[in-house]
Amino acid sequence: MRILVKMSYLGTHFLGFQIQQQGRTVQQQLEKVLKRMHKTHVRIHPTSRTDRGVHALEQYFHFDTPLNISTDQWQYALNSALPDDIYIHDVSVVDEDFHCRYDCVGKRYRYRVYQGTHRDPFQYGLKAYEPRTLDYERMNEAAHHFIGTHDFTGFCSQKAEVVSKVRTLYQSEIVPTAEGFDYVVTGSGFLYNMVRVLVAFLIEVGRGKRQPEDVPRLLEAKDRKEVPFTAPAEGLYLEKVYLSPEALTSDFGEDIKIHRKKSLEND
Amino acid sequence: MRILVKMSYLGTHFLGFQIQQQGRTVQQQLEKVLKRMHKTHVRIHPTSRTDRGVHALEQYFHFDTPLNISTDQWQYALNSALPDDIYIHDVSVVDEDFHCRYDCVGKRYRYRVYQGTHRDPFQYGLKAYEPRTLDYERMNEAAHHFIGTHDFTGFCSQKAEVVSKVRTLYQSEIVPTAEGFDYVVTGSGFLYNMVRVLVAFLIEVGRGKRQPEDVPRLLEAKDRKEVPFTAPAEGLYLEKVYLSPEALTSDFGEDIKIHRKKSLEND
Repeated sequence: MRILVKMSYLGTHFLGFQIQQQGRTVQQQLEKVLKRMHKTHVRIHPTSRTDRGVHALEQYFHFDTPLNISTDQWQYALNSALPDDIYIHDVSVVDEDFHCRYDCVGKRYRYRVYQGTHRDPFQYGLKAYEPRTLDYERMNEAAHHFIGTHDFTGFCSQKAEVVSKVRTLYQSEIVPTAEGFDYVVTGSGFLYNMVRVLVAFLIEVGRGKRQPEDVPRLLEAKDRKEVPFTAPAEGLYLEKVYLSPEALTSDFGEDIKIHRKKSLEND
Repeated sequence: MRILVKMSYLGTHFLGFQIQQQGRTVQQQLEKVLKRMHKTHVRIHPTSRTDRGVHALEQYFHFDTPLNISTDQWQYALNSALPDDIYIHDVSVVDEDFHCRYDCVGKRYRYRVYQGTHRDPFQYGLKAYEPRTLDYERMNEAAHHFIGTHDFTGFCSQKAEVVSKVRTLYQSEIVPTAEGFDYVVTGSGFLYNMVRVLVAFLIEVGRGKRQPEDVPRLLEAKDRKEVPFTAPAEGLYLEKVYLSPEALTSDFGEDIKIHRKKSLEND
């Protein structure tokens, strides 16, 4: 039986999602609990392997089990055994051919920034700090230029190992908040460090160092050296995961371009 | 020259305030920066040595220095060198006979609790979680019974090593919040784990396991076994420090009993 789990976690105290030789990771915590229940190793498959310090407001994983436990019991058992910085919101049974990574057709990230005259230690790990005055309107204008289907080679880490760096963004906007701004971006998929590179670039626009009109040329240039900064991990939240084309078209309209994966490409 | 520093810090990533053989503590971070500036060890004296996981919205320390640096420069130098989970709000020059611990005549703590049907991983380390329904009015009634001068032997850790366990509370109340409640308590001083024992007791009252009317008898009994629980550190914030009798009487009136220390008693 294939089980799909919806969860959230605080990224602060994890070395990232993916299991490592040593250190506390989200995958390690989840597989430890599942191993205890199954008396054997159970591999989990997430929609996204978030980096160290990155949070998830909504994240999914699936696993296969021979255990005959109701979905409510799964939720209760997992929450009882997991540490307090992971919470399981929902458990469901899915078809055997469903796959968290390959069925994921879109994700939304939110990057949170607070501003002000001084640092606030109580935002540590939860929001990035930017003391300089920023022009949110210009930033939002630049953000809109990224909407659509583009090759994002110039806006991701050079460590990104995927073949195609073409992605479609359905939403890309600056939302002013009580304490600063959020950058909200929904796309078919994201390259390594892509959101953090976009945020760092948008902050440059906000400071007047870059212009919104530069975006088409920089996308064309496909040269990371032109866009050298990366915003810190701590402000980044995986906010929503789209597990079906219908969920995506219901938010962004029937006419959008949908990238179906069902392949082994890393994303 | 004696320098007084006002700061706040997130307690989550510290093993507590006081320096230890190994591990990251607030004192260690501060003394490391001061040592670098002075080329020799400089001892700091805090008003309060908070425990592991306990936060400070307002905390003071003083130290002596031969360096001729303006208070603004001190603030800038400290904030530049300190990690992002400590922030220096203010630096001033004080008399040579001022002492952070012995001149402290009162402190306010705030203990934050969130409620709801499920845990929220984003409150991890910042607020304690209590899922059970609580009667805030009864809790507040019980909280009021602690106001005044009492022997708190029954409401602190048995590890508290001070001679006198008599303290005066000027404020003790339950304040409902959007997500749960805060317990706010101002006193002449606090014994080891005293606020956390009071919170755990008040939660018992909120659940109907204890009555507000039990308080006088329990204070009289001076027996920790009657009040066995301790709330977790993570919800606890040192919120305000009173460094003069005038500051305290301005908040609580001229008629209050003031405990002056100017002694070596641990508090």
